[in-house]
Formats: sequence, structure tokens, C-alpha cells
Amino acid sequence: MVKTFNVAIMGATGAVGQQMTEQLEKRNFPIKDIVFLSSSRSAGKEITFNGQTFTVQEAKPESFEGIDIALFSAGGSVSEKFAPEAVKRGAVVIDNTSAFRMDKEVPLVVPEVNKSDLSLHKGIIANPNCSTIQMVCALQPLKELFGMTKVVVSTYQAVSGAGIDAINELKEQAGDFDNAKTADAKMLPVKSAERHYPIAFNVIPQIDQFTDNGYTFEEMKMINETKKIMHDDSLAVAATCVRLPVVTGHSESVYVELKEAATVGQVKQAIAQAPGVELMDDPSNQLYPMPLMTAGLDEVFVGRIRQDLDNPNGFHLWVVSDNLVKGAALNSVQIAEALIEENII
Amino acid sequence: MVKTFNVAIMGATGAVGQQMTEQLEKRNFPIKDIVFLSSSRSAGKEITFNGQTFTVQEAKPESFEGIDIALFSAGGSVSEKFAPEAVKRGAVVIDNTSAFRMDKEVPLVVPEVNKSDLSLHKGIIANPNCSTIQMVCALQPLKELFGMTKVVVSTYQAVSGAGIDAINELKEQAGDFDNAKTADAKMLPVKSAERHYPIAFNVIPQIDQFTDNGYTFEEMKMINETKKIMHDDSLAVAATCVRLPVVTGHSESVYVELKEAATVGQVKQAIAQAPGVELMDDPSNQLYPMPLMTAGLDEVFVGRIRQDLDNPNGFHLWVVSDNLVKGAALNSVQIAEALIEENII
Repeated sequence: MVKTFNVAIMGATGAVGQQMTEQLEKRNFPIKDIVFLSSSRSAGKEITFNGQTFTVQEAKPESFEGIDIALFSAGGSVSEKFAPEAVKRGAVVIDNTSAFRMDKEVPLVVPEVNKSDLSLHKGIIANPNCSTIQMVCALQPLKELFGMTKVVVSTYQAVSGAGIDAINELKEQAGDFDNAKTADAKMLPVKSAERHYPIAFNVIPQIDQFTDNGYTFEEMKMINETKKIMHDDSLAVAATCVRLPVVTGHSESVYVELKEAATVGQVKQAIAQAPGVELMDDPSNQLYPMPLMTAGLDEVFVGRIRQDLDNPNGFHLWVVSDNLVKGAALNSVQIAEALIEENII
Repeated sequence: MVKTFNVAIMGATGAVGQQMTEQLEKRNFPIKDIVFLSSSRSAGKEITFNGQTFTVQEAKPESFEGIDIALFSAGGSVSEKFAPEAVKRGAVVIDNTSAFRMDKEVPLVVPEVNKSDLSLHKGIIANPNCSTIQMVCALQPLKELFGMTKVVVSTYQAVSGAGIDAINELKEQAGDFDNAKTADAKMLPVKSAERHYPIAFNVIPQIDQFTDNGYTFEEMKMINETKKIMHDDSLAVAATCVRLPVVTGHSESVYVELKEAATVGQVKQAIAQAPGVELMDDPSNQLYPMPLMTAGLDEVFVGRIRQDLDNPNGFHLWVVSDNLVKGAALNSVQIAEALIEENII
């Protein structure tokens, strides 16, 4: 008989929470009971799961009594408050916020890359930032085969990473082409920031707040999380993170320097064989990944693979994935699946 | 008395041609007579210039009789056909297409960077690709002060680079949010290409056709033109060129390695003092360039200046400029102005 688990989704009404519910359903996750939790503001909403209707409940410490696996995606402060309560009550928390990602006691896991870190968990497992996940999926096979010294990434990120309200704002702004510059803007680049800018027909080179060194938190997340997941503090990583008028699907222009020389053919083969990654690279047929076409799909898509014209160890990649799927909900559910497979839970 | 010149605009009804007309008017270019030329398809349209109405004429070799300065922006094949005819009749051609850019006999000029190359002209002067122009304006002051060994650029390019029809296509697609994926697409990535993709709510990592090495012609233009303009074949340049749902204004995420160490303060100061370039870099006030805000302006705007966290000689820049203004029409008119200033014409 298949072992089943009591699952809680914290932040069930958000963009990622909704995707988590879909992923659990789609992947036939072995669920005994499921509970959908949120802030008091969203409590009372209804969610359909496997044909049954559930009412979203306001999260309280006691909500986690009897829960085996708690998937969190309701903001860092909610995780800081409730994740320890869930762990105290015996749950394993898989947290999609940045609250615990750089905590040395907390594994930061992309199953295709560092599944073995799961066994070190002490109750909380962190799900990396969306833009980090897709990049490390694409880079890991190259690092394994050829070694890696340097990564420079420029991102092209969708608004869904900023939540459902940001999607609605893009939709509204896009409908008023002639007034794009003066469009009403309340959500981007950061809801709580002082200034907001329209995103339709625009590009905003700020995701999350700025840190003291001039990089944004999003950029520092990509830099630090990549080193942690790949277990390589000596890997040089630089990131420029940019928001675009795209609904779902982050794209990344990645320049990577390998330790050993490789050919484009070898790099393509490594990518094609990597788990969770799909090679989509045929210039003669104009085939390359685009976010509008790959939204909703599970894989990390890689195309436009080119050798640098000056450095034979340098390669350029174009990496696209659905930021709500592999970048968040799917990766969290895959972590839960790996815990079961490896008999860690 | 100010010397005045007979000017022809070839491709007068196009997106860049219209901007050329505006720039000549706005900058009070010393015009004796002006003639607006086009293909037979657009001939007969009317254009207002300095309060007078002109009828666009179909271009013929004889159209260039008596012309001193001919500004071309009607596609490479038109330039190949008519530029030699104009030169034969005594005109200096300033060509905004890629037809002659890499010709060793043809200076490729951004006045702020290599104005002195103008004196070498033999009738044709090439205006660089839009994405190249703004990048070399931002990089030249750094190269002069600190030397430069490597450039890696990822672009975020507006649809207006593909012409007025591409703008209209974006506008139509953007108005139908719910059907973005199946939207009618005829213009992008390349009108004459076999496959077309929607651009609204999407990102297309192809600009121009592919070359045999997997890079696009747009990417190879940025690579080769940068070396030519900066007179440095040893400069390593790599480019990934990407089209976005933005109307006007190209953005670029540029990683540069300098020969000599520098501080962020020195880099900012060099940018601030460079001609034609405006430093727009104050993270604490969320100040950085964005294409929607800088469209229509003359300058190249630079922000998000950061030192690389691993390489003290590495810097990251965010460069935005109007691709139709400094990226095309303004630069062409500035070349004409420089010819006059330097008594070359």
C-alpha cells in the first residue's frame, strides 16, 4: 500500500499556492488529508482539489498539528512566524520564501542538482529563488562534465513573480497603449517601495529592493544561492535582474566559463541528457525557447547555445522556464517527492 | 553667412526616416533644399518640414543630382543600389543600413567615439547598428581611461527597430491579452523569415537572421562594429540580442572587464563626463534608465553601475537609449554636422 501524507499549503490563494495545488493534483501526490491555509484576509475562499471543495482557513500555530509536509509560499515574514511552529509539531516545511535560504542549517534544494542535501534537514527545507532554479538546472550538467569558473547572467523576468496583482496591473496597462508612460502603477518594481513604474511596454531593471552594494536582493539571491546549491563558493557569479511585460516565464541570457574546453556539440549533448532540462536549439528552424510558448510546462528549456568567439571555454545559453512551475511550485513538490523516495520522511 | 546644403532623405516614410526629418528640423540643420525619397510604393505621400509640405518622390539615380548630403535608411539593398549613384553625383552618403558598415573603405562612425575617422571617407559613411551605437557611447570613456579587454552584452530591444508595421503588430497583440499565445504574427522576429512569433507578453531571442556560427546577424553586427568603431580587434566582444514588447528604446545589460582596476566612483565619473551620455544611477531613489521614460530623448542613459563581486576589474552597466534617435536618426544627423564642423564637406 502506498504511504500517504497530511499536507498543508500555506499561502494557498497566491499565484504560487495555486500552482502548488495544481502540481499536487497533477502529479498524484500521495495525500491523506490536505489543508489550505492563508492570512485572515483570504480565509474563507474556496479551493477545488481532486474534485472536492475546500475552504481556506486562517493559519494558526495549531493548524499544523498532525501535518507531515507543509508547503509555504506566503512571504518571508509568514514563514519566519509559522515555519518553526509547523516544525515544532512534527511537520517538514518546504519553504518557497527567502526567509531561510541562506541559513546554514537549512538545505537549499533543486532535486536535479543537490538532492543529497535533503538528508541534512532539521525540519525546514528551502526552495530557491525562481530565477536561480532554472539556471542551476541548466548549468549543473556542464559543471559536472567540464567544471565551471564563472557565470554572468542577465534575466528577463515575468511579472507573475510579483504576484497576481502584478499580472492584473500589466493586463490593464497593456490595454491602454497610447497612455503607457503615464499608466497607473502600484505594484512594480516592489509593492512596498516608494516609487512605482509602469511595466507595459517598459523594462524595469529592479527586482526586489536594493542592497548596500548596488545589487538588488534578487541579484544577490541568484549569486549566493547558486554557490550554495552547487557547493562551490569559488564559483564567480554575477547577475543583473530585470522585469519585463511578460506574464509568466523567466528568460535568462547566461554566459558561462568552463574549467575545461568543450565543443558546442558536447555542451548541447550534456544539456539534452540533463534531468528536467529540454534542449530546444535549432536556429535553422528558428527554434529556441520563448516564455509565451513554454508557460505552464514543467521543463527548463535551453537554446541559443553558442561558443564564445574569443574564449573557447566560454559559452552562451538562453534559458527559459515557467517561474511559477519549476521556479516555485513544481520544485517544492519535487522536494516533497524526493523526501518520500529517499525515505527521509 | 552660414553655409547651407542640399539634403536628401532616402526612406523618408519609414520609422527612422521620419526621425531623421524631425532631427534635421529640431537641430536647425543648415538646409538649402531638401528632397524626400522613397520606393514607388510610398511615393506621393506628404511630409511637413519646417512648416512646408513636401511630396515624397520615387528615388531614381537622377534624384541625387545636386545633393550634398544624402541620409539613407531604406534597407540594405536600396543602399547598395542608390548610394553609389548618389556618390557618383557628388553627394556624401550617410547610410543607416548594414550594407557598407564592415567595408574597409567606409568609415563607421559614432561622433562621440571616432569622429576622426570621417576624414577617411570616400563618399559613403556608415551609421552603426542601433544597439552598437549606444553601447560604444557608454564604453568609450571607460576604454579611454582604464583600457578594456572584454565585453559581454545581453540586449533588450524594442520593436520599432523592426519598423512601423512591427509597432502596429505589438499594439494589436497587446490589446488582446487573453489570446496572446495565438495572436496573429507576421513581422517578428524577421519579416522575411519562415516563422513568426507574437511579441506581446513574449520575449524573442532572435533579431535578424542566423549566421552559420549560431549567432544572429544582429549579434555579429554588435561584435564586429564595436571592434571597428573602437579600433581594437583584440577587444573580446560577445552579444546576445533579444526582442521585447517595448515600442521604442533599447536596453542593454553590459558586463565589461577593464585593463586597469577602477572604483565604482571612477566609472560613474567617467560616464557622467562623457559626451552624449547621461549618468542616471541612484538606487536609493530607484533611479535608473527605463526605455518607456527615455523614449524620444537624445542621450544614452547609463545606470545600475556595479563592480563585479569576483573580478575587481569587472563592471556591470545598464545602458538605455532611443534606438530611433541616437541609435539611428540623431547619429546620422550628428555625422552630417561633424562633416560640416570639420570642413570635410
